[in-house]
This record gives sequence, C-alpha cells and structure tokens, in this order.
Amino acid sequence: VEEDGGTVLVGRGTVDMKAGVAVQLKLAAEIAEPVADVTWIWYDHEEVGEDLNGLNRLLHEHPEQLRADFAILGEPTAAGIEGGCNGNLRAEIRTFGKRAHSARSWVGVNAIHLAAPILDRLAAYEARSVEVDGLLYREGLNAVTVTGGIAGNVIPDECVVQVNHRFAPSRSPEEAVQHVREVFEGFDVTIVDIAAGARPGLDVPVARAFVEAVGGEPRPKYGWTDVARFSGLGIPAVNYGPGDPLLAHADDERVPVAQIHAVEAGLRAWLTGV
Amino acid sequence: VEEDGGTVLVGRGTVDMKAGVAVQLKLAAEIAEPVADVTWIWYDHEEVGEDLNGLNRLLHEHPEQLRADFAILGEPTAAGIEGGCNGNLRAEIRTFGKRAHSARSWVGVNAIHLAAPILDRLAAYEARSVEVDGLLYREGLNAVTVTGGIAGNVIPDECVVQVNHRFAPSRSPEEAVQHVREVFEGFDVTIVDIAAGARPGLDVPVARAFVEAVGGEPRPKYGWTDVARFSGLGIPAVNYGPGDPLLAHADDERVPVAQIHAVEAGLRAWLTGV
Repeated sequence: VEEDGGTVLVGRGTVDMKAGVAVQLKLAAEIAEPVADVTWIWYDHEEVGEDLNGLNRLLHEHPEQLRADFAILGEPTAAGIEGGCNGNLRAEIRTFGKRAHSARSWVGVNAIHLAAPILDRLAAYEARSVEVDGLLYREGLNAVTVTGGIAGNVIPDECVVQVNHRFAPSRSPEEAVQHVREVFEGFDVTIVDIAAGARPGLDVPVARAFVEAVGGEPRPKYGWTDVARFSGLGIPAVNYGPGDPLLAHADDERVPVAQIHAVEAGLRAWLTGV
Repeated sequence: VEEDGGTVLVGRGTVDMKAGVAVQLKLAAEIAEPVADVTWIWYDHEEVGEDLNGLNRLLHEHPEQLRADFAILGEPTAAGIEGGCNGNLRAEIRTFGKRAHSARSWVGVNAIHLAAPILDRLAAYEARSVEVDGLLYREGLNAVTVTGGIAGNVIPDECVVQVNHRFAPSRSPEEAVQHVREVFEGFDVTIVDIAAGARPGLDVPVARAFVEAVGGEPRPKYGWTDVARFSGLGIPAVNYGPGDPLLAHADDERVPVAQIHAVEAGLRAWLTGV
C-alpha cells in the first residue's frame, strides 16, 4: 500500500523477518563471488525455545558451518546497524491453593487470589536503562501468560504467571535469575528458558569495516537475538535488516519498501566491495 | 474402604451424585406402588450452563412432566434435609491492553498487569452470611479461571478473570449483578450465567410431611441446586441425599455407605408410608 509518500508492505511477518530473508535470498542468488567467504544460514523456530532454535541445532549438529570472523543477522533494525542485544529469560511464577466446590469456597484456598501480589509486583516494577560499551539498553519484566482454574464451579488449586525478563548485556544470566527470584520472593519460581545477552562488540576491525561500507551510526539492540549465540562463540555479530522492530508481532506489522532496498544496497556494497 | 469403623465408597462423583442416583434407581425399581404419584427424573449437564441443563431442557420441551406438589433433589446433604439454596452467578471481568513484542514492552500495554486490581479486590473480598427464613446462608465471590497471553514473547492485549458469585436467596439476581458490577467498578464486566436462589420453603404441608417421615432438623443449602428451578415453578423442593457436600468435586471425594442406607430408608419410609 501507499503510505506517507512511500510504498509499504503490510502483513504479519513482513518485519520479523520475511523482508530481511527476501533481501538475503536475492543477494545469495545474484552475487556469485562475494569479496568475503559467505555462509548463508536460514533457520526455523528462532524465538520459540532453546532446544528448537534452528541456529542452536546447527551449532550442535554441524559446528563447522558456524566458523566465522563476523556474523550479520537479518533482524529488523529499520535498515540501521544495531549492536549486541539484551538477555532473555522466561520463568513461571506459581501459586498453590486447595481445590473445593465454589458453592463452599471457604473450604478451599483460591490459588488465583493468591496470585494477586505477583501481578501487583509486575504492575509496580520499574525497568532499568543500562549503558553498556557506550550504547543504552532498556530492560523489561512482563507477564506474558497467566493460567489458572479448572471449571466454573471449582476453587482452583493452581495458578501460573509466565514472566519474560529482558536484561542488559552487562548482567549475567545468573544475575538475571537472582533478580527474578528476588522480585518474586515468597513464590514458587521455575526458570523455563534463559539466554545471555551480547555486548555490542563493534570495536573489532571486521565489524568496523562493515559499518563503514554500510554507513550510518550503530545503535543498541533491545531485543534478544541470535547475535548472542555468535557472541558466545567469540564471533562479533550485528543486526541489520529492514523494518521497524517495534512493529514485530504487532497487529499493524508493515515494512517500507525503501528500507528493503536500502538494506539490499548496504549488503551489496559490502559483499561486492563496490 | 474401611474408615473410622465404617465402610466408605471412594472416588470422583461418589458424593455428587452417583450415590444419590443409585438410591433412587433402587427405590424406583423396588417400590411398584408408592403412596404418592412419583415422577423420577435423571438428567445430565446439571452444573455446566443454563442452556445445557437437562432439567431446564425438560422444562421447556415437556413441561407437563414437571407438574408436581413437591420435589426432592438427590443432592448430597449428608443424609439430612437441606432447604432452599444460594443463587449462582458467573461473570467475566476483562482488561484490554496493547499487543507488542516483549523485547520492547514499553511500546505495548500489558493487559495481565492491568488485571492486578481485579485479583486484589477478590483477595480482599469479605463474603456475607445472611439469615433467610430462619436458615443462615453463606455467600462467596471467587475467581474460578484466569486466562491471558498469546506467546512467551508478546505483551498480551487481553486478560479475562472468570468469577463465580454465590448469593443468599434473599438477594435477587438483579441485585447480585449490581453487586458484582460494583465490586469490579472500572472494569469490563460480562454476565455469563445467572440463576436465582430459592428460599427454604419448608412451611408448606407436603414439605412438613416429608420432613416428619424422614426425621431430623432441616438445614440451609449453601450451593445452588436445581431446587431453585422448582421454586421458580412454585413447587416446594428440598435437597436430600448421601454424601458430604464439602467433598463434592474434591480430590478426596468419598461417601459413607451408612449414609446411602440412611437415605434409602428415609425415602422408602416416606414413599411406602410405613
């Protein structure tokens, strides 16, 4: 559709991250002899869980495919370079009550009512903004799901609030777990999934060369992305792709075609050395 | 199993209300010519919802089957007579937020966090005890289910707390709705299901005759039961069945065989006039 004088591609997944993948596919097909030795990797289940993540599986099954001096992720960055990423933790906060018929609720203990302080603490939580290697990272602690109850006439004996904590790359996974346990002190806390953040790492020569070829000022990446897996391997990695990351997963997800062209031009400039 | 010197039948549904149904089936088969003109009714979906309730469907499809001077429900009463019942209301209390990627939670509005005051009000709620026609009814207001969230990386845009309100028969359904709306003022409230309570109604002659044949002191019934449907038709109705109603729907549901025999004897005494 036309919008604000430009053409925009509208629809779920356009930003995160079909547009980035489309650019990569086009360049992989067109540039037969790039200046660098490029391995293109496209994979599934990026955001679902550690054990399903395609890059993580590749790392375990074919580690030789992931030997590199530098990695570029096609994550949406509105066609700018974004360094590093926040860490990502999911945990279940659980309450336990006693089941009973709701006509005689005083015989039971309502696990959903017991969860009130969990939501109170989340609602009152003030997230930090943390500077790491010159870039400012914004954190977050949010309920992503809540589940409790058996039937319309039963006092529930269990309630589970799943929370998602995004933490600055200066905080270790262990410190993040400790922090979540402190916030929900007094409650049953189960860590479901955790992934370390990644420091920006833009000071190595190969990263500098890429930044120079593409142009523009690097920014911090808020969300956890798979750059952290490359960081874990000692490989500098950046995010660079079309689309506003704020629109990822949103009802009004959409990407300006101009950004798709910009990323194509940026990557082409670096890959061809022109 | 043997327990406290008596034989006890253990298992889901023994109290609510397989034991009561078993007694009725036995008496229906054995007593060919009861002193009263008896219509035995067994039906399904008693507690699920108004439109599914078997007695309600019978009332609409074959109303002639429900013409009577008196009704006895086999609901568990620990083999005592319980008059009347509380009203029963279910409502959904809903919050609305704005969906976003959880890596950038500040862009969205978390509907689960917005539900914190709903659980706070439920946890702080003090239920009344109300005397009606000489019997004391205890009320209740409880969350029975809570649901919210889309995925582990999305700020949820909706959260629903389903509440169940049990109200004394002196309060009309309209007053109960008003009360629930007041408790959750400021929130979106949808009434899902409502059923009026029933006053004890033990002062009519036919009810008195039954009480005399069976013996014992009538008590109030806390839970909503289908006596209220008979009340609505102008037919006095009582609850009378084996099993402790506090164990209905509980993990440790169980019924003493002695209560099954007592109810069989009580109903037999009245039906045969012996």
